[in-house]
Amino acid sequence: MSAPERRRPGGFTRRGVLAMTSLAGVAAAGAVGGDAAASALGGERAREIGRRRVPFDGPHQAGVLAPPAAHGWFAAFDLRPGADRAQVATLLRRWTGEARRLTAGEPVPGDDAMATGYGASSLTITVGFGASLLRRLGAPVPGELQPIPPFPHDDLDEGRGDGDLGVLFTAGDAIVVAHALRTLTRSARGTASVRWQMTGFNPADGVTAERGSTSRNLMGQLDGTGNPRPGDPGFDAHVLVGPGGDPAWMRGGSYLVFRRIRMLLDTWDTLPRERQEQVIGRRKDTGAPLSGGTEFTPLDLDRQNPDGGLAIGPGAHVRQASPASNSGATILRKGYSYFDGYRADGAPDAGLLFMAFQRDPRDGFTRIQQRLALADELSRFLSHESSALFAVPPGAGPHGYLGQGLLDGL
Amino acid sequence: MSAPERRRPGGFTRRGVLAMTSLAGVAAAGAVGGDAAASALGGERAREIGRRRVPFDGPHQAGVLAPPAAHGWFAAFDLRPGADRAQVATLLRRWTGEARRLTAGEPVPGDDAMATGYGASSLTITVGFGASLLRRLGAPVPGELQPIPPFPHDDLDEGRGDGDLGVLFTAGDAIVVAHALRTLTRSARGTASVRWQMTGFNPADGVTAERGSTSRNLMGQLDGTGNPRPGDPGFDAHVLVGPGGDPAWMRGGSYLVFRRIRMLLDTWDTLPRERQEQVIGRRKDTGAPLSGGTEFTPLDLDRQNPDGGLAIGPGAHVRQASPASNSGATILRKGYSYFDGYRADGAPDAGLLFMAFQRDPRDGFTRIQQRLALADELSRFLSHESSALFAVPPGAGPHGYLGQGLLDGL
Repeated sequence: MSAPERRRPGGFTRRGVLAMTSLAGVAAAGAVGGDAAASALGGERAREIGRRRVPFDGPHQAGVLAPPAAHGWFAAFDLRPGADRAQVATLLRRWTGEARRLTAGEPVPGDDAMATGYGASSLTITVGFGASLLRRLGAPVPGELQPIPPFPHDDLDEGRGDGDLGVLFTAGDAIVVAHALRTLTRSARGTASVRWQMTGFNPADGVTAERGSTSRNLMGQLDGTGNPRPGDPGFDAHVLVGPGGDPAWMRGGSYLVFRRIRMLLDTWDTLPRERQEQVIGRRKDTGAPLSGGTEFTPLDLDRQNPDGGLAIGPGAHVRQASPASNSGATILRKGYSYFDGYRADGAPDAGLLFMAFQRDPRDGFTRIQQRLALADELSRFLSHESSALFAVPPGAGPHGYLGQGLLDGL
Repeated sequence: MSAPERRRPGGFTRRGVLAMTSLAGVAAAGAVGGDAAASALGGERAREIGRRRVPFDGPHQAGVLAPPAAHGWFAAFDLRPGADRAQVATLLRRWTGEARRLTAGEPVPGDDAMATGYGASSLTITVGFGASLLRRLGAPVPGELQPIPPFPHDDLDEGRGDGDLGVLFTAGDAIVVAHALRTLTRSARGTASVRWQMTGFNPADGVTAERGSTSRNLMGQLDGTGNPRPGDPGFDAHVLVGPGGDPAWMRGGSYLVFRRIRMLLDTWDTLPRERQEQVIGRRKDTGAPLSGGTEFTPLDLDRQNPDGGLAIGPGAHVRQASPASNSGATILRKGYSYFDGYRADGAPDAGLLFMAFQRDPRDGFTRIQQRLALADELSRFLSHESSALFAVPPGAGPHGYLGQGLLDGL
């Protein structure tokens, strides 16, 4: 990715993304961590996983556009009482430096060696700012960061929602994610501490930037088929804050909605597969819409079955969630499954760490969820248990730090 | 593995294990699930992970001797009140059939399609019996299943300990593990339900059967260097119930101790690396003992530093845990890291799902832990939070089922 392209906020190109994922996909020969991984781990596959890198610096933070990884962890941090602008700036400068090294497979100063030998493993570290952080700093809170309104049947745990800072860690290796989380937690000491943290996964390497590799969620459904892709018409306008966006420090950034969505798997399991497919609106094996075709065939929402009923029923999830049903609302979703044991009521504490990037949550997640909560048949098999919203500033240049645009303006 | 070898309980050979791991390591060309994975997932690596198989049938359950995988989940089940011998036999027959299909990458009847396309992914499913199950069935409880005694500083949660049945699921893909857990949970309905469940991971493919590929735990330490290996002198005698063992239904089996060991990572982090290395008795980067050499150099417990002090200190973990300090006690450990968010006190709820296979826990885990709880410097950075003990019967023949020896004798 050339330097001019890197610095063009919002000027995201399909070519740029392909270059990035291609860089991530090939075993970058010079990767420091990769070589260490090669010598320490033996297996060819371990070497391959360790060597992969997703470049940290760029017009957008890498976690926004990078393909989903096998492991995705999220941590929200709260500032210590009394932490001021200077301390926040120091923290963000430190985190940026650490993220830049870790995503290159290099140790940080004073590294605890937790991931020595495992390489970069496609690590991404993406930092977002909660409305509460902006208020603490005395910065105006953009309308995009207005609280997400409550929806019918929400069952939110406030202790596991929101936060001053939110950080998404993704990588091909869990120990690399854990190491990154520990590193940033340690360097935040005295300024910020973890408010809540969740641990998710995806099928191993089942997901790439290519079509045809959509991963399954814990309901067994291919999840993400309808996701917009970089380069699609309107992608930038829906997902990224453009060059004229306000506030200026968010140009090239995006807004991240996080929801912990528990799946009522025991109830879901009682449905025959045909009924599950009607609730979703897609076949379970292939992911093809019930209106026909293959996984990526566009939905035909008007298609009728021979009996005259709609092929994709009125309450089917894909109908209710589609841009056509939501005035064009389009979000870039990232899902990581979680399985956190069993609850006291005997149900699995399992589901989806749902994340969606968009230019404005009011026109994206909120609009769609207002419809889903009322009309989506799938909603009675889900329970939204936590919610958070973060402004994800643009990527950093090689000498800058994440959020510098915000901090410099205060 | 030849049929006669397969049926010789306790007659475990190094050649046999190599054959097994080699089978698991090569991309078994005929694997049904593997082919499905290949077509559905695209990437070469996904194909490779999906195709790998660990044979289910054999003299020992595959999870005892298989190398650690990237994902290890454990679930304990309790029988429903009133469940009788016939229902338990039906359950075990059903679980065996399902495990045999799933570990071959094949769907089970009525499959929920959660893992369609992901192949076998080295799945192992290993079933153990708690003392409470034997009591329910009116079977004598072997001395090996006597409750593990309490140790100083134990902080056990009984609701997350023990259980009538314990099942270890391991695979290279989390979705494959989740699918297997859901499948067995579903087929147990009416007979048994989940008592507790925990989710763990290892570095991706960082662990193989070969030396030189020990994986790191969340303290950053290479963990498992001292593990005995199939073929080592005394391995069978320490780990497996021999041909003359009592009860007869356990011949070829082993006893599994499970402990959820939380690591006090924030405290650990305050130690300089040199001090961490003294607590463990090994270098952190290479895993070499402080008495010199490389990772697999035997400990020299008498070696002195130039200042006259012991190179491996009196309270060092490797000294206190070594067979030499425990009358030769030797256990086969399997560790999976867990990271379950943060506790109310701000500490990470993270550590190790510690599992140890041995012929007799009284001569294995219990003997070692009695020493560690008192003398191991590492113990003040650990908290044992749950404990369970299971008799793991031998593997099933192609037409038998797990635990048949027990059930047929009742």
